[in-house]
Amino acid sequence: MAATTNAGHVNINSDLGESFGPWVMGNDTEVLKIVTSANVACGFHASDPVVMMDTVKLCAQNGVSIGAHPGFADLQGFGRRVINLTIKELEANIAYQIGALQAIAALHGMKVTHMKPHGMMANMSAESPEMSEAIARATRAVDRDLIFLAQANTEQGKAARKHGLRVAEEVFADRTYTDAGFLTPRKEANSMIKDPAKAVEHVRRMVDEQAIYSTSGKRIPCQVDSICVHGDGPTAVTVSKAVREGLEAAGIRIVPLPEMPSLRP
Amino acid sequence: MAATTNAGHVNINSDLGESFGPWVMGNDTEVLKIVTSANVACGFHASDPVVMMDTVKLCAQNGVSIGAHPGFADLQGFGRRVINLTIKELEANIAYQIGALQAIAALHGMKVTHMKPHGMMANMSAESPEMSEAIARATRAVDRDLIFLAQANTEQGKAARKHGLRVAEEVFADRTYTDAGFLTPRKEANSMIKDPAKAVEHVRRMVDEQAIYSTSGKRIPCQVDSICVHGDGPTAVTVSKAVREGLEAAGIRIVPLPEMPSLRP
Amino acid sequence: MAATTNAGHVNINSDLGESFGPWVMGNDTEVLKIVTSANVACGFHASDPVVMMDTVKLCAQNGVSIGAHPGFADLQGFGRRVINLTIKELEANIAYQIGALQAIAALHGMKVTHMKPHGMMANMSAESPEMSEAIARATRAVDRDLIFLAQANTEQGKAARKHGLRVAEEVFADRTYTDAGFLTPRKEANSMIKDPAKAVEHVRRMVDEQAIYSTSGKRIPCQVDSICVHGDGPTAVTVSKAVREGLEAAGIRIVPLPEMPSLRP
Amino acid sequence: MAATTNAGHVNINSDLGESFGPWVMGNDTEVLKIVTSANVACGFHASDPVVMMDTVKLCAQNGVSIGAHPGFADLQGFGRRVINLTIKELEANIAYQIGALQAIAALHGMKVTHMKPHGMMANMSAESPEMSEAIARATRAVDRDLIFLAQANTEQGKAARKHGLRVAEEVFADRTYTDAGFLTPRKEANSMIKDPAKAVEHVRRMVDEQAIYSTSGKRIPCQVDSICVHGDGPTAVTVSKAVREGLEAAGIRIVPLPEMPSLRP
Repeated sequence: MAATTNAGHVNINSDLGESFGPWVMGNDTEVLKIVTSANVACGFHASDPVVMMDTVKLCAQNGVSIGAHPGFADLQGFGRRVINLTIKELEANIAYQIGALQAIAALHGMKVTHMKPHGMMANMSAESPEMSEAIARATRAVDRDLIFLAQANTEQGKAARKHGLRVAEEVFADRTYTDAGFLTPRKEANSMIKDPAKAVEHVRRMVDEQAIYSTSGKRIPCQVDSICVHGDGPTAVTVSKAVREGLEAAGIRIVPLPEMPSLRP
Repeated sequence: MAATTNAGHVNINSDLGESFGPWVMGNDTEVLKIVTSANVACGFHASDPVVMMDTVKLCAQNGVSIGAHPGFADLQGFGRRVINLTIKELEANIAYQIGALQAIAALHGMKVTHMKPHGMMANMSAESPEMSEAIARATRAVDRDLIFLAQANTEQGKAARKHGLRVAEEVFADRTYTDAGFLTPRKEANSMIKDPAKAVEHVRRMVDEQAIYSTSGKRIPCQVDSICVHGDGPTAVTVSKAVREGLEAAGIRIVPLPEMPSLRP
Repeated sequence: MAATTNAGHVNINSDLGESFGPWVMGNDTEVLKIVTSANVACGFHASDPVVMMDTVKLCAQNGVSIGAHPGFADLQGFGRRVINLTIKELEANIAYQIGALQAIAALHGMKVTHMKPHGMMANMSAESPEMSEAIARATRAVDRDLIFLAQANTEQGKAARKHGLRVAEEVFADRTYTDAGFLTPRKEANSMIKDPAKAVEHVRRMVDEQAIYSTSGKRIPCQVDSICVHGDGPTAVTVSKAVREGLEAAGIRIVPLPEMPSLRP
Repeated sequence: MAATTNAGHVNINSDLGESFGPWVMGNDTEVLKIVTSANVACGFHASDPVVMMDTVKLCAQNGVSIGAHPGFADLQGFGRRVINLTIKELEANIAYQIGALQAIAALHGMKVTHMKPHGMMANMSAESPEMSEAIARATRAVDRDLIFLAQANTEQGKAARKHGLRVAEEVFADRTYTDAGFLTPRKEANSMIKDPAKAVEHVRRMVDEQAIYSTSGKRIPCQVDSICVHGDGPTAVTVSKAVREGLEAAGIRIVPLPEMPSLRP
């Protein structure tokens, strides 16, 4: 459905609000100039109520739509360690985090419009129908209008659609893909795209064709609603900026997730 | 306004869902037969997402209305230790906890209808206009229909009204009052009422007259919307049961908070 | 080496001090009458500094030797959920927890004399030479005189010996064994021994013969230094008491770990 | 006693190892070139077992002596918020944190040689004989050879001496003092010394004369064993470096705490 409806539009998202107490992480101010949607940490793998409040305010000031970015309850491991939750625990943790951000958002008159799982919870659910369904089920129970921002071509999108949620499929600006349409594992040499020009070309082709291209050149058709960029490290910001500018130069409109043609109610 | 409108009605509330992970606290099953509203811990001083989910379900099954029971982020101290938060921190913590419970409640099709601060946060705010206003402000921003369940005759009710929230004033079934209308400090000999018959008489008089009576017999007019009972220890449950039965025997209707005449929209 | 040296002696151990903040767990007072060594939780999966202090004091009063019982940092999951730590993280977590208990023990003039991993950390390390070696290495670096209380016939004992630690092998009073010498999985019908008389017979045979007997009757020779008993639930205490009395009736001396003949320096 | 024995020697200390999980804080590498003793966070207000392990290793490589830097259990507030612990809780928390660091230190063959309270725990104990005695008592129970690094002229030193601990009194390189010998509150204009030349002069006079000089010029005799410097912000490092160089230029030997003449056993 998406290939045509998305014509000329794309979203750019990034993880934001990952500071905690006195510890600062990331370049939120810089990243907010690039993205149109933010995945806001909810206090389990990063952030705390005050950081969330500050992040929501910054998003509001920059016209950036906000999404809940729930993760495993593991600050020390930043939500990147395997933790085996039961399905019930997962549902409860998802709902809790979304709700917390919804209320914090209300303090600044903002509304949470999407949800994207973080870190190892994202990686595990991308391959697990059971986990993805639990996440989708809990998300829908909390707010049926939430958009599930899913890793393209994974179990996340399937589960979200099955449970009646709108789905935004995301691709990465600085990562390559295998012939199966999955991210090339980080340990492999060509997993990252650090050259801004290459990243721009890579992203433009995916947006234009609504398809992923693997490192071997294979074309995997796919809804491309959002480009995920990163803000950690100077390279990341440079690449992210280049991608935004490259897309705009090509006449693509960069919009918040709820304004994507394929996601309009 | 309340004295007349509440005629023949009262609410009974108690703190519930105070287990954490593998640790069980309280007799929630017993208490749920007595109360009509539950103050549900939100994971900061007690509880966790799964305990909250189980608690909400039990409340739904028992027709008990639920309220958020936010506290200081201090599991080890059960939210009973002084922690000096800034006003901004307090607002963020209040919103976060209410939102988390709202979303967990949604998993079982329930709605959070009131808010009552816990432990030291309650004690400190009862005497602090600044803290009470922060709590009221954050609560209203999250949901303007939430009822602020306030310790009768304290800064809590004043602040809540100032910020446009409906207020339910609560008195205690098993505690006595000073001539100033405050709770007799626990260290004093006559602070507790452990005799069920006396507790029934004490509560009935407060409900009938919409007034607090001090240990010296002084009458302090006061809206009496809700009776707070406790579930820890066999005495507490016995007293609580007696109070409920005594009120019913006197023809008083025991209703969930949102059904109190004085609180109807 | 152990079969002969242990003649007429055995240790009984149990996990103690698993309360947390205001939440009580277990029957420590009852269990302390049965055991001669306690595995004391160190604040990561259960307990906190004050609970540890109280537990150490109770052990001192009962002549019970104390061991550190380190676990994964997961209060909510009670250290029973899989968490994948790096080897370095595991070493640091082991050292941290042992040291914390050593210092708390010093407040009551006590000394930590053994170490036993808890929950999922125990289960995972029992099968992992790499994890067991990390635990042994960290333990030895902290105090080379610490006894590694190991699940009999697992990687734990091998790793501990390799790193020059004294090893106590433990069997369970209320659990059965497979022909491979491992615990029968809990989901199988005959995994638990709930009949006190049968538990006594089971334990006596293992102590007398310094061997494990599987449910099929297979004899697996094995050093039997310590019997692990549980205190949760009335059955557990009854079985534990019976085991202690049965062993004493047979003239077996029940001693703290450091007094076991096989473990004397 | 100290004025003469310290002639020609002083220690420089700083708080180190204040990162947490994925969050980095401070310039430990730079600061380690300046100081001779480090106060290492113990996981309650900052740090975690792995950060502690890395910090200890860095200290070992730089010949810097290490001390435990216990604080309130409040990562989010960085140990800077008032939390009212009971005396028993305080003792348990102090012992726990010292022990944890001792064990982590052992992983790299290091020994903890001093203890200095952090943040609000330091501020509150500086004025409270009861709190300072609890800290001293717990410290001594864990290791009677530990040096109590105390804010000069406060209850900390008195309590430590009363409980038989060696005391190092510290002054600040970048803070001014009132006529009462206390730090000028931060809100006052002249509380900080940001000019490196002035800081050097200020410190040299305190070291030479073993006395504090107030902003009004009042001389308060005082043992000056250690200079506390900070590493947060470029100014802090510049001032700290200047102080070290200024002291060395004046022929003062900068030594680890245990090598201070007044603190030798």
